[in-house]
Amino acid sequence: MPQRRGIIFIVSAPSGAGKTTISRAARQAIAGLEMSISLTTRQPREGEVEGVDYQFVGEDEFNRRIACRELAEWARNFEAYYGTPRAPLDAAVDSGHDILLDIDVQGARQIRELYPDDTATIFVLPPSFAELEERLRRRGTESEDSIQRRLKRARDEAAACPEYDYLVINAHVEESLARLDAIVRAERMKVGRLRADFAPWKN
Amino acid sequence: MPQRRGIIFIVSAPSGAGKTTISRAARQAIAGLEMSISLTTRQPREGEVEGVDYQFVGEDEFNRRIACRELAEWARNFEAYYGTPRAPLDAAVDSGHDILLDIDVQGARQIRELYPDDTATIFVLPPSFAELEERLRRRGTESEDSIQRRLKRARDEAAACPEYDYLVINAHVEESLARLDAIVRAERMKVGRLRADFAPWKN
Repeated sequence: MPQRRGIIFIVSAPSGAGKTTISRAARQAIAGLEMSISLTTRQPREGEVEGVDYQFVGEDEFNRRIACRELAEWARNFEAYYGTPRAPLDAAVDSGHDILLDIDVQGARQIRELYPDDTATIFVLPPSFAELEERLRRRGTESEDSIQRRLKRARDEAAACPEYDYLVINAHVEESLARLDAIVRAERMKVGRLRADFAPWKN
Repeated sequence: MPQRRGIIFIVSAPSGAGKTTISRAARQAIAGLEMSISLTTRQPREGEVEGVDYQFVGEDEFNRRIACRELAEWARNFEAYYGTPRAPLDAAVDSGHDILLDIDVQGARQIRELYPDDTATIFVLPPSFAELEERLRRRGTESEDSIQRRLKRARDEAAACPEYDYLVINAHVEESLARLDAIVRAERMKVGRLRADFAPWKN
């Protein structure tokens, strides 16, 4: 029996704020942090690897997973489905391991509702929206139309910040990573996550 | 106007678990952490400095402070009064500075009640009670009778652990200091501490 329940760390951010970069770096840099691999029906982008960046599936398979309640959250964005498999989350919480999810505001709401005591939620914001626009353009993977849609959506999503436990302003990746690391370490010391039968104060 | 309210960090521990060592080291090592100086009617021990370790006052002055509601908490332990001045706590919260308090379980309850949204509470435990007994003896400042009373009290106090936000098992001071640092950093990123008029997601 592990001494504490595992923690589901949720990282959300407006598109382009850098959450994917941070959460992937976190998986490398922070010990004992697994990464949830999302399911999607969209086509792989250049360089994306099946089972690492996403699990790429067809719509029929995606619909089967929804029907069998195998997803903790799912949504349709920009003409594709995205979802989070439920089994790895249950396994992490039960076995006392921690898992990191990189999901949007709507998805975060669904996960928090499903695991109210076992999440720690982190919102990542760019230093300013001007910088966010610049980052989206620098990425160079999307049309002007798509960039404008993302910017509009980013402003809408940013309003969800007060729903989160922590705010990380992402100016430099290394600094943000250190901040995320502090959050992970602190959450692991929360008394509320200890198992009822773990009572070192009785020894 | 500061962007967030200041945080009152409360460190409690059974006698001898090392909380005084840790919290004094924390004041040196963690940037922007003020230390609350307790008021006491007991005599200074060798090496203790007025205004640094404690404010040493007489019983009349202590009673005046209680009557004028100048203390956030106070208690009588081992034939002396101990108390925490209220003004530095109010000033810290209002001005967005953080302050560290090294107080017992009863005191922690009173402060948490007075500042329910502005505290982060940390319980420090020794790796075992056998080690705690050894530390008390090594200190060599107290009689066998006093050590036995402290050990009994330590076991009683340890049962309060579930009331706290965080648990730090103190095996090595440097490691415990790093843990406290992570807690301080994480608490400073809490969205709930941001001022209502601070809304970077609107910029």
